[in-house]
Amino acid sequence: MKMSKMFMPTLREVPTDAVIASHRLLLRAGMIRKLSNGLFTYLPLGLRVFRNVERIVREEMDATGALEFKPSVLVPGEIWRESGRWETMGSGMLRVTNRVDQELVVSPTAEEVFTALLRAEISSYKQLPITVYQINTKYRDEIRPRYGLMRAREFTMKDAYSFHTDDESLDKTYTDMGGAYRNVFRRCGLSVIPVRADSGAMGGTGSEEFMVESEVGDNNLILCPKCGYAANDEKAACAPDPITQGPGSAPTEVAFTPIKTPNVRTIDELCTFLDTTPNRFIKTLVYQVSNCELDLSTAPGCAVYEKATPEHAAAYYPEVFIAVCIRGDLDVNEVKLAANLKASDVVLASDHDVERLTGAPVGFAGPVGLTALPLVVDLSVEDMHDAVTGALATDLHYDHVEPGRDFTAWLTADVRTVVAGDKCPNCSTEFYSKKGNELGHIFKLGYKYTKSMNMHYLDENGKQQNPTMGCYGIGVDRTLASIIEEHHDDDGIIWPMSVAPYQVVIIPIKYAGSMAEAADSLYSELTAAGVDVLLDDRSERPGVKFKDMDLIGVPIRVVLGDKNLPNVEIKLRSEKDAALIPLTEASAHINAVIQKELASGEESAS
Amino acid sequence: MKMSKMFMPTLREVPTDAVIASHRLLLRAGMIRKLSNGLFTYLPLGLRVFRNVERIVREEMDATGALEFKPSVLVPGEIWRESGRWETMGSGMLRVTNRVDQELVVSPTAEEVFTALLRAEISSYKQLPITVYQINTKYRDEIRPRYGLMRAREFTMKDAYSFHTDDESLDKTYTDMGGAYRNVFRRCGLSVIPVRADSGAMGGTGSEEFMVESEVGDNNLILCPKCGYAANDEKAACAPDPITQGPGSAPTEVAFTPIKTPNVRTIDELCTFLDTTPNRFIKTLVYQVSNCELDLSTAPGCAVYEKATPEHAAAYYPEVFIAVCIRGDLDVNEVKLAANLKASDVVLASDHDVERLTGAPVGFAGPVGLTALPLVVDLSVEDMHDAVTGALATDLHYDHVEPGRDFTAWLTADVRTVVAGDKCPNCSTEFYSKKGNELGHIFKLGYKYTKSMNMHYLDENGKQQNPTMGCYGIGVDRTLASIIEEHHDDDGIIWPMSVAPYQVVIIPIKYAGSMAEAADSLYSELTAAGVDVLLDDRSERPGVKFKDMDLIGVPIRVVLGDKNLPNVEIKLRSEKDAALIPLTEASAHINAVIQKELASGEESAS
Repeated sequence: MKMSKMFMPTLREVPTDAVIASHRLLLRAGMIRKLSNGLFTYLPLGLRVFRNVERIVREEMDATGALEFKPSVLVPGEIWRESGRWETMGSGMLRVTNRVDQELVVSPTAEEVFTALLRAEISSYKQLPITVYQINTKYRDEIRPRYGLMRAREFTMKDAYSFHTDDESLDKTYTDMGGAYRNVFRRCGLSVIPVRADSGAMGGTGSEEFMVESEVGDNNLILCPKCGYAANDEKAACAPDPITQGPGSAPTEVAFTPIKTPNVRTIDELCTFLDTTPNRFIKTLVYQVSNCELDLSTAPGCAVYEKATPEHAAAYYPEVFIAVCIRGDLDVNEVKLAANLKASDVVLASDHDVERLTGAPVGFAGPVGLTALPLVVDLSVEDMHDAVTGALATDLHYDHVEPGRDFTAWLTADVRTVVAGDKCPNCSTEFYSKKGNELGHIFKLGYKYTKSMNMHYLDENGKQQNPTMGCYGIGVDRTLASIIEEHHDDDGIIWPMSVAPYQVVIIPIKYAGSMAEAADSLYSELTAAGVDVLLDDRSERPGVKFKDMDLIGVPIRVVLGDKNLPNVEIKLRSEKDAALIPLTEASAHINAVIQKELASGEESAS
Repeated sequence: MKMSKMFMPTLREVPTDAVIASHRLLLRAGMIRKLSNGLFTYLPLGLRVFRNVERIVREEMDATGALEFKPSVLVPGEIWRESGRWETMGSGMLRVTNRVDQELVVSPTAEEVFTALLRAEISSYKQLPITVYQINTKYRDEIRPRYGLMRAREFTMKDAYSFHTDDESLDKTYTDMGGAYRNVFRRCGLSVIPVRADSGAMGGTGSEEFMVESEVGDNNLILCPKCGYAANDEKAACAPDPITQGPGSAPTEVAFTPIKTPNVRTIDELCTFLDTTPNRFIKTLVYQVSNCELDLSTAPGCAVYEKATPEHAAAYYPEVFIAVCIRGDLDVNEVKLAANLKASDVVLASDHDVERLTGAPVGFAGPVGLTALPLVVDLSVEDMHDAVTGALATDLHYDHVEPGRDFTAWLTADVRTVVAGDKCPNCSTEFYSKKGNELGHIFKLGYKYTKSMNMHYLDENGKQQNPTMGCYGIGVDRTLASIIEEHHDDDGIIWPMSVAPYQVVIIPIKYAGSMAEAADSLYSELTAAGVDVLLDDRSERPGVKFKDMDLIGVPIRVVLGDKNLPNVEIKLRSEKDAALIPLTEASAHINAVIQKELASGEESAS
């Protein structure tokens, strides 16, 4: 392509909302433009990179034997009602009613679509396993889209779904997909951190997220420097850290005792008042829980709650309240709590509800004698002794409380927020933490969709069974943006060869005379060899051309000047120094560099 | 690809709503599935064809120098308000409101998006002309989607837009696009009929539609067998056909005379009553007209109508009434009428409105003495003499009416429906007609969008100007379906080599022993040569395999049987007879056939 035929509107200034490198540089390099909040257009140069990333994803999917489909982007709301997610997906899912009053969804993900498609086609175990995928437009109605392509409303996602007769088969595909994901990210030049993650609204167990470090990441990653343990804090566990000496380290034989604590409500106030440390207290928090699927029929205080029993999906309680006990120096992680409760959401109860359910104002809740609420006890509390708790009455606490003796858990669970400084459950090394963005996610979904949507096959004995299912997503735009986050400098983008919009740019100092002739001939030679070449034939000053090409990040720059001819100057975007090569050898040299660069990603793939 | 790894769920029976060949065969061959009314999924085999068609379209667009963009599918409603089409696009455009109350449109077309994008980037005449395009998901909210991919709600369209400083430049791109479209359709093996067409809701003048003949086509094509004139009946003109002898052929000097016509309302009744032929009558019809952009300020009866004056778009009358006179044996074409009135829609007025405006019940309207309505006179009436008309009173007509003498037109226009048997305006040969489906459409839009949306550039004299604009669309799915309509037989699809899902299928009579060895080796050889090969390694009877491959339409079939080896049987899907070729020569022979087939489409392209 000649620059004079290209449309590449570079910018000096970018809007102030472009705070991260990828957003700024994609705008500056004329690769994307904003159409509206969270809605972007790829311009020609950006689209070339997009297609390269898409191609790498497609190649790696095809290599696993996954089969590409192309469903519509708008899909019937009906199938989302079947799975139960019409109700539970919340307002992040964009719903439309068409002119004949049919409910449609602008696909945010496609478990429902592929389950519906394949249940009509799969009838026998002989057709399983099967893995299918699409690379298609998705929409999520982010309240606050930002960071350019990193968190847009409309985006392109590769989403794959696999169906199996048994767990072993699912495990194999899940592992293959994990491998394919590692290949994709390596070929894109990305350093990803694979982490165990909560599978959230997707349901099911067994999942791995592929994260990239990012200052503006919306995930907190908990990392072990020794054994490589890595988890999202929404799933991270840690080694127990009980008090091992002094007060609180051993059981007391003293019975729990009321102590007057006038106007002392916070842990800090209690510490001052009792002259001790927060880890001696048991915090009790009341939560309002949405769509809990646990059986609460015999749980304390739960007889009053209504149960919803949809035809196909699991029964659930639309709204209940529970109490959580945790050591005073720790925080409850609400995602971990929700996962333990099989709930779609948990939020702290209002002051009014706390008072109504505990009989005392906020600050005096406690587990001893609590009968109106099921009690979820964090693992941290199990190890405590001789503790202080609220006493379910204004200005009153209990001292010498013994978990087990003075109260019992309805459910014991790990719900603490693990932070840097906590210890690895595998090797007891201290964790550090990073912020990260999720690029990909692989899940074992299990039977959630095949059961709720009635997908069956006949097994070897002619018996009807539900297949078990996995799902696997990669954000294409987000991957593209992350490549820039990892590969840029002050001058612009430094594309890896595998995804670069052009692999080579030829810059004649002036596009005239012998320089134009040499440029044209090298351009023809490289094009014929299948190289993606850009020829900067503009009548701009060389400095302007260099600056533009550094900005858009073409990996190899060839400069042709009268002074050097018949030699040409070849410089890699990623390196400082240039080399002089005879024009006659330039094409071979460039081809060798390209092959070497591409191989560095591919080699480790096989 | 080996069949055992492929997902190709062929069907014997298809739903009864699949009435056309492409719909039936795409379902039967396991290439598409319906997700809901008007919403389809491409399965892997169908997607391969889709990508081939898409690739051909992209190659031909790129060859014209058009630059590919990728805007979002959902776009802000705001820009549709700017152009004025938020109001005029009607309920075929799907509108959504997101959670932050922003109006969005699921793109049905993208004049607004590209005008908005480029007005922000183009500032100088030096940047023009530019042609941009996308191949992207579109949605039109068809009331009654049918015929499979031929009239779906969601579909993929290539839409290009060009911007120019002058008409000559627009003409050139328009001509280039016409050429590119011809290349696309020829390479896809399609016989298209390029016709002049009304540009409808797109506005502007100068347009060409690319039609394929179809029994269920929604366009009536008017064709001249001699000079090649071809037009949609929504635009077709014809030679004048006045009465040349006998009554009605010459002016009368008799003044118009009332005649009593008790209960005689229809033309047929009048003919019987007066013992004459329909072409002696002037029919007068009253229409209700929506969004008329003509200046009606001095038109009869129009002082009462309100005019809307949007900020950027042209002023228009939301609703007015007009009368149309046409020869009694002809029909008014409402699209031609609307185009002449620069209106978005015309419908026959209600009986009540006819009576209110003409002072007489339906059947007695006439042009003589009509003052409450602007009178549109069809060209056919201009040539009439000594005619009969309604007399604006119950049971009364006028005889001896002379157009021009007894009434005058407010607007003379060609609004008749041209039909087979009418004569070509160029060469006077009798027209024939066909039904057709539109695959592509190229338009000269002019200034409609650049003016209403304030897109400007500075010309060579530093003066601000609006660019003039063209737009160019191809339906990708519809093109794919049309290929099947033109290329199939009772056994299935017969894909042209250029778009076939696989170019070759290798069928071993049994996938075992020497047959498997030979199959594998030929498969490797062809794959290495870059041929798309399918190897039918299923343990099905040969008859089942042959039937399946005839159904899915792979162009070249290679059968390997013990009886023939070391020879193999090669048969083209499009031919009856097979040839025996030595296995050692098979690969070279097949490559030659493929190159020949591909060249037959390409060759004529250059």
